[in-house]
Amino acid sequence: MNREKLTEATRSQMPERRWRHVQGVVDTAVELAERFGGDRDKAWLAALLHDYTKAWPTDRMEKIIREQRLPAELLDHDKELWHAHVGAWVVRQEHGIDDEEVLDAIRYHTSGRENMTLLDKIVCLADYMEPGRDFPGVDRIRELAARSLEEALVAGFDSTIRLLTERRKVIFPLTFLARNDLIRDLEKNQSIGTE
Amino acid sequence: MNREKLTEATRSQMPERRWRHVQGVVDTAVELAERFGGDRDKAWLAALLHDYTKAWPTDRMEKIIREQRLPAELLDHDKELWHAHVGAWVVRQEHGIDDEEVLDAIRYHTSGRENMTLLDKIVCLADYMEPGRDFPGVDRIRELAARSLEEALVAGFDSTIRLLTERRKVIFPLTFLARNDLIRDLEKNQSIGTE
Repeated sequence: MNREKLTEATRSQMPERRWRHVQGVVDTAVELAERFGGDRDKAWLAALLHDYTKAWPTDRMEKIIREQRLPAELLDHDKELWHAHVGAWVVRQEHGIDDEEVLDAIRYHTSGRENMTLLDKIVCLADYMEPGRDFPGVDRIRELAARSLEEALVAGFDSTIRLLTERRKVIFPLTFLARNDLIRDLEKNQSIGTE
Repeated sequence: MNREKLTEATRSQMPERRWRHVQGVVDTAVELAERFGGDRDKAWLAALLHDYTKAWPTDRMEKIIREQRLPAELLDHDKELWHAHVGAWVVRQEHGIDDEEVLDAIRYHTSGRENMTLLDKIVCLADYMEPGRDFPGVDRIRELAARSLEEALVAGFDSTIRLLTERRKVIFPLTFLARNDLIRDLEKNQSIGTE
């Protein structure tokens, strides 16, 4: 894999503003990998590719979801979720990315999922808190990320859930399940810590 | 079924404060049934019995959940949810209530569920908005209930979800499934209305 070629191919998929976001996520993901003992190279790769098809037309994504039999339930939920699964499929086809850990981190970077891997958490959190992000609560997420991936991610998911309830939008079930799962893990670790 | 005997039996399960709440839910549920074309008698019965075991000790409820093979996942979630399923089981045993519609409305009055029946919605909403309730957003729920059971219920579930995120508590999956389902129904009806 040629890093420069892959970088250029990714950049060419999206407008400049989206590309700046991707660069922010790459830098943040690599930092988080260093801080929490993740794989630096995988964090770089998954972060670079996480929004590969984000700027694609929705009908192009819908076609891939239907033809490649990606999870059909995606079509019942917000289009914001489509690019994650479609992106994982496309980067395998176009660039031969076959590391399932990297592909999963791309697939679940928007929704989260139960039993998130370290790499899933790094990419998902980097996407919430990269320097270009500016939404109510983002500074709190950055603060929490100084010491706990999981605490910061729960705060991230909570901000999404609150936003979606305010906008009266359907909430993707995986996001709830991911959040509940992280909270249970944190509770378990706390009770171990205090025994 | 003797209404007075059942009322006395219910009252004897709980302290005075809880009993006042039950009376509020009964009055509100009957009103909602009249407003939205529900069955007045079933609304009265389900509302009367909805908190039958709410004040019982948790170990007594846990024993019933385990011995009667009620959904085991209840034990992984907040104890607040137990009394709904336990209550439905107990009123069948003690009072021969065998109307599944009434039993379901008791079972799902706290969590909600997908495909809620009219009676489910009436009892669940009455529980959110009876006159004794006082929490941020309750007046908005009462306003919405003047015209739409579903809009009011979504607002109720959203208040629960927000409270649980603020307290960093696990959210019972049925609650967000119920909420998503109601939002989808409302969207469907809106698009029919505007076609």
